[in-house]
Amino acid sequence: DATSKKFFDHIESKKDEYIKRLAEAVAIDSVSGEVARRPKVVEMGHWLKAWIEKLGGTVTMKDIGKQTLEGQEVDLPPVLLGQYGTDPSKKTLCVYGHYDVQPADKSDGWDTEPFVLTEKEGRLFGRGSSDDKGPVLGWLWAIEASQELGLDLPVNIKMVFEGMEESGSVGMEELIRAEAKGFLSDVDCVCISDNYWLGTTKPCITYGLRGICYFFLSVEGSTKDLHSGVFGGTVHEPMVDLVKMMSTLVDAKGNILIDGVNDTVAPVVADEHKVYEAIDFDIQDYKRDAGLVGDVPHPSKVDTLMRRWRFPSLSIHGVEGAFYGQGGKTVIPRKVIPDQDPEDIFKKVEKHVLAEHAKLNSTTKVSLTSEHGGKPWVANFDHPNYVAGRKATKEVYGVEPDLTREGGSIPITLTFEEATGKSVLLLPMGRGDDGAHSQNEKLDVSNYINGIKLLGSYIFNLTDI
Amino acid sequence: DATSKKFFDHIESKKDEYIKRLAEAVAIDSVSGEVARRPKVVEMGHWLKAWIEKLGGTVTMKDIGKQTLEGQEVDLPPVLLGQYGTDPSKKTLCVYGHYDVQPADKSDGWDTEPFVLTEKEGRLFGRGSSDDKGPVLGWLWAIEASQELGLDLPVNIKMVFEGMEESGSVGMEELIRAEAKGFLSDVDCVCISDNYWLGTTKPCITYGLRGICYFFLSVEGSTKDLHSGVFGGTVHEPMVDLVKMMSTLVDAKGNILIDGVNDTVAPVVADEHKVYEAIDFDIQDYKRDAGLVGDVPHPSKVDTLMRRWRFPSLSIHGVEGAFYGQGGKTVIPRKVIPDQDPEDIFKKVEKHVLAEHAKLNSTTKVSLTSEHGGKPWVANFDHPNYVAGRKATKEVYGVEPDLTREGGSIPITLTFEEATGKSVLLLPMGRGDDGAHSQNEKLDVSNYINGIKLLGSYIFNLTDI
Ligand SMILES: [Zn+2]
Ligand SMILES: [Zn+2]
Ligand SMILES: [Zn+2]
Ligand SMILES: [Zn+2]
Repeated sequence: DATSKKFFDHIESKKDEYIKRLAEAVAIDSVSGEVARRPKVVEMGHWLKAWIEKLGGTVTMKDIGKQTLEGQEVDLPPVLLGQYGTDPSKKTLCVYGHYDVQPADKSDGWDTEPFVLTEKEGRLFGRGSSDDKGPVLGWLWAIEASQELGLDLPVNIKMVFEGMEESGSVGMEELIRAEAKGFLSDVDCVCISDNYWLGTTKPCITYGLRGICYFFLSVEGSTKDLHSGVFGGTVHEPMVDLVKMMSTLVDAKGNILIDGVNDTVAPVVADEHKVYEAIDFDIQDYKRDAGLVGDVPHPSKVDTLMRRWRFPSLSIHGVEGAFYGQGGKTVIPRKVIPDQDPEDIFKKVEKHVLAEHAKLNSTTKVSLTSEHGGKPWVANFDHPNYVAGRKATKEVYGVEPDLTREGGSIPITLTFEEATGKSVLLLPMGRGDDGAHSQNEKLDVSNYINGIKLLGSYIFNLTDI
Repeated sequence: DATSKKFFDHIESKKDEYIKRLAEAVAIDSVSGEVARRPKVVEMGHWLKAWIEKLGGTVTMKDIGKQTLEGQEVDLPPVLLGQYGTDPSKKTLCVYGHYDVQPADKSDGWDTEPFVLTEKEGRLFGRGSSDDKGPVLGWLWAIEASQELGLDLPVNIKMVFEGMEESGSVGMEELIRAEAKGFLSDVDCVCISDNYWLGTTKPCITYGLRGICYFFLSVEGSTKDLHSGVFGGTVHEPMVDLVKMMSTLVDAKGNILIDGVNDTVAPVVADEHKVYEAIDFDIQDYKRDAGLVGDVPHPSKVDTLMRRWRFPSLSIHGVEGAFYGQGGKTVIPRKVIPDQDPEDIFKKVEKHVLAEHAKLNSTTKVSLTSEHGGKPWVANFDHPNYVAGRKATKEVYGVEPDLTREGGSIPITLTFEEATGKSVLLLPMGRGDDGAHSQNEKLDVSNYINGIKLLGSYIFNLTDI
């Protein structure tokens, strides 16, 4: 309609200013994982606070305590709790984002300075451009544009912007749960813009995430450090046993070999593949964006998407075994899907590794422990919150968004859902090839500008929640 | 004979002083691997220099340059080149030892302060007591005792004491090769006292060491860091491929499964087992000293000794795979025995891993590189240098020593042999349970005092070299 057109044209007209401000934000190297840059994270939080206050909003910087990092006790960056609009007759949208970024150094293989936003061929290269400064700024630009045009927003907006997302969101779950009856008590729906399109051309909205379990497998051979030179060949070597057990967990195509683990996976129903067929997803793009040196194990689009979204997967990480080792241990993260019970999976994995260890006839001692990294999550994509996101996508991009899930976990999603009891929508701004945690992270100019329109349009469409 | 008796009695009479001086040496916490303690290594070197000079010897402290440690450029500790006796009519013995020690901290699980020599039930607990301060002091006590008794030594003695042995002997090989035509040019035989008895009751002298090769196996899946959550299940995972390949290298009993690798192992001849039967070695002691949590894979003494000395072994260490990993890599140290050619072994290992990778039908890229850690070494135990060591053992302990090899590498041994072209003898002072690199390192009082007699008697027996 005419209002949308006016709103979108206004946003287009401010493109240069929007990019300039994003460059300012990227220049604040708010890396949460480094003690030396921790003050920059705080600076970034205050930069946002000043902006929200300039817009007429109010902000509380929530102190969430301290942590030990690099051997030092340091303050956690504050969580920014912002409020724009206090009309008791309106519903309230809560938006979440993070103002910290992953580490980056030119020497890691960046083609440009990571903290200098650099435009090349329609792309804005810089750490945090896409993850998550572009989207965070997007919310503020949407508000600012509505003010400049004298448009009244249909909802009050509460903002939760954290500075520790890239470092495990320390203290965040506790804060959200604590604010369930406080700052978040009047929230009617939640939107998180911190993920990506599946590919590079088609917008999507995301309604599901796999969960994750971590299993810690350790093998002990001796109570002492043994020098392999002295003992090699004469003792049961824990690392050998560990490697043997690990090699039985999953096949080279990613099929989990643990008895019973696939039993709880919902069978693929007759025309379910059509849902996946309809998704705009190109295997060749995927391979290129992932930087794979060879082919994917499952060349069909449907297989790859199903494995990414609806089937559990198992990876092996962080194998430790000192050079003069007493033993070895490993971390096995397993993606779980909504139907899987972590306790049940643990029992099956434990049964498997003990049986494999028994086959080795080794006298090493094996133990398995687990930790829950994040529960799986699936939302109702017909909720008015989602309908608003779908309408906004249609208005901005002229197409219905793909309805996607993600292979990874964004644990905060479920925390918001549980704390508010309300619908949570994942509404991405960037593309699948943005390289959020890699060298040469970028945000396309078109995604940035259209993303601002998208977030604004979404807000204006939140009339039925 | 009478001289021996007088010499041995004198040493016995000085027991308290010998222990007191060892306590002084242990109190100098000369840990070469820590920047903060590097000055203590230098202090220890000068402590020895002063003593040798007091005995009438001469010492050159050889500067061997700098290294980068903990991110700082630090001086390498000097190599002490000492000379006692310059009689041109005498032959020259060269002795090697090291005055640096492994790191130690009470909190690592020591029952006593590691740098306070503590006598308990006939044992002297302290870092460096056995490795290698006891033996280094032993040489000086032997010289001092001969002086006190007015006994003329049959040989001149050159001393090479280094301060970097526990940190890879940086610069040492170059120095020895450089001094082949200099300080070492007139050396007639070499003795190193830096290893241990096989067990706890029977003295031994050591004539062989296995060598070591390191193989670096790496698997690349992507040119980028991939988040397992996002990609798990849809790509060939390098860590999975790595674990699968590693699991095929060796069985749980330590048998190497690589085709052809065992071909070059000399077959066990008819009565060869008798040599091993004769060795004083107890499996139960071995298990206890190694702190094993279970049984050894080869319960017979002969099997365990053969696997330790005459068969190659293969271990798996240092598996790396970042949590968000592009790939995985591992280090596979392989012990090689004298008949094995590292180039040939490399080709066989490479053929094996490529074949195993091919079985996986994976599109990851695999590569193998190698590095030679130390060549194998076997000496002629009928050489007069060995005969002197055997006679000395008989005089001190009343028994013929076991003739042993060691599973590990002491690369300096071969370097001395190659640089001097002369016989090198390994003549241990301590016992197999001394725990050289563990918590609660100790040297038995009896091994210390008898060891001083042994080193002295060895010198006096060096009449036929
Ligand atoms: Zn993010
Ligand atoms: Zn991120
Ligand atoms: Zn040593
Ligand atoms: Zn040592």
